[in-house]
Amino acid sequence: MNQKILFEEIKKKRSYLCVGLDVDLDKIPKHLLSDSDPIFSFCKKIVDSTARFAVAYKPNIAFFESYGSDGWKSLERLSDYLSINYPSIFTIADAKRADIGNTASRYAKAFFEKLSFDAVTVSPYMGRDSVEPFLNYKDKFAIVLTLTSNVGSEDFQTLKTNEKHFFEKVIHISQAWKNSNRIMYVVGATKVNQIKKIREIIPDSFLLIPGIGAQGGNLNKVSDFAINKNCGIIVNSSRQIIYANNGLDFEKYVGDEAKSIQTIMEKKLIDHKII
Amino acid sequence: MNQKILFEEIKKKRSYLCVGLDVDLDKIPKHLLSDSDPIFSFCKKIVDSTARFAVAYKPNIAFFESYGSDGWKSLERLSDYLSINYPSIFTIADAKRADIGNTASRYAKAFFEKLSFDAVTVSPYMGRDSVEPFLNYKDKFAIVLTLTSNVGSEDFQTLKTNEKHFFEKVIHISQAWKNSNRIMYVVGATKVNQIKKIREIIPDSFLLIPGIGAQGGNLNKVSDFAINKNCGIIVNSSRQIIYANNGLDFEKYVGDEAKSIQTIMEKKLIDHKII
Repeated sequence: MNQKILFEEIKKKRSYLCVGLDVDLDKIPKHLLSDSDPIFSFCKKIVDSTARFAVAYKPNIAFFESYGSDGWKSLERLSDYLSINYPSIFTIADAKRADIGNTASRYAKAFFEKLSFDAVTVSPYMGRDSVEPFLNYKDKFAIVLTLTSNVGSEDFQTLKTNEKHFFEKVIHISQAWKNSNRIMYVVGATKVNQIKKIREIIPDSFLLIPGIGAQGGNLNKVSDFAINKNCGIIVNSSRQIIYANNGLDFEKYVGDEAKSIQTIMEKKLIDHKII
Repeated sequence: MNQKILFEEIKKKRSYLCVGLDVDLDKIPKHLLSDSDPIFSFCKKIVDSTARFAVAYKPNIAFFESYGSDGWKSLERLSDYLSINYPSIFTIADAKRADIGNTASRYAKAFFEKLSFDAVTVSPYMGRDSVEPFLNYKDKFAIVLTLTSNVGSEDFQTLKTNEKHFFEKVIHISQAWKNSNRIMYVVGATKVNQIKKIREIIPDSFLLIPGIGAQGGNLNKVSDFAINKNCGIIVNSSRQIIYANNGLDFEKYVGDEAKSIQTIMEKKLIDHKII
């Protein structure tokens, strides 16, 4: 996967939707619980019913890990399923990993070789050698936490260092790392006022934008500030889509919810003359 | 596990050694590779041959994850083995996790409920709500990355915000979080000059100190600066111990290596009037 294919997919599907897979067995439709692997069954049905409207999937690794090795097995099945059946869809392991160089290499191996993800979210706190191992893979991406959507983002990310906020330093410094063309950035949809500033620093980079829906970010506003000439954004929605309904025919509601978001995105892509 | 039990264990074993379990199947003794679960077999033998000299074990989760669901299964076996056979030894999942609140809760569940670790290393970048879910567990600990041992630690951790370094802000701000008595801090042994300053801010907190041996930190120096009245430090060694030898009788060399580090620690505990 590379950014060109991703942009083609965006134009083809008239969408920049990423569906977040935060699988909670207490919330999925009850009739799936008797399946041998209900986590995978649920994900498969979500994927199949939303793939026409989505350009990316983002399994939230914490949810899989909380089910132990069984959850990790489900993640392996999901990764295989996506890469075989939807090779042009961008897959993001939302794992927020990072560690010193030789350990970061292991995380990169876990998600890029043992599993087949196109990208991993990573934390910048440990600096260059904690991220560069993820950037050694051609056509794979590290998505660096920059300005996140949560309350705690005010604790450190917005501290001032000289005249710059800490999250701006993260962007500036990471742009000097080796293979920085393989870096994307996480910017929360709740931070719409800072997105303009971020776009001035990195006009061309792709942004992964979580935080619409349950967290309160506004899709229209964030799109207007963040879209660039290659679209340049992927906006995530998790709970609003995947738990739209939990009846026997939940897939219909899930698909409808994804379609309703895609419809807004299509309008934005037309407004910004991308399609 | 609580800090009182940990301190008793330190006094009893005359040691503050943590053995890091960075299991690489390319480096372990060849005769173990025919076992049904060589990762667990290796860890079990390392644990059994070093438990007299160590107060903590620290599986490096990246290494387990790089072997997929099989690696995660080995981690489950190891966690069970430690909690059943060595209940007074402190167990740390070196996972460097963090995410927004509801996702962080899932990571906490993965390591504290599904697995039986006493502590998890966490990244502070996302702030309060990304760490507090780990602090909701009685007698469990979050060990916050503060000033790490790697080269990249100079990228962000030592940036100045007002008059303070960023890592100092991490300590100051995290001390105000709910249940902050359950926070420990990661401080690299390579940062000996800053440890004095850190001890002034948090005289009583436990520090997890990696970076002696292969990374160049000095055990004697770091101990003299960081030991407090309850010892207050756990010093990690990984490769130097676990890959001391790869012959049929590797356990003897592994045990000897752990003992040689424990001997230095015993002298330090006597010097500092802890024992």
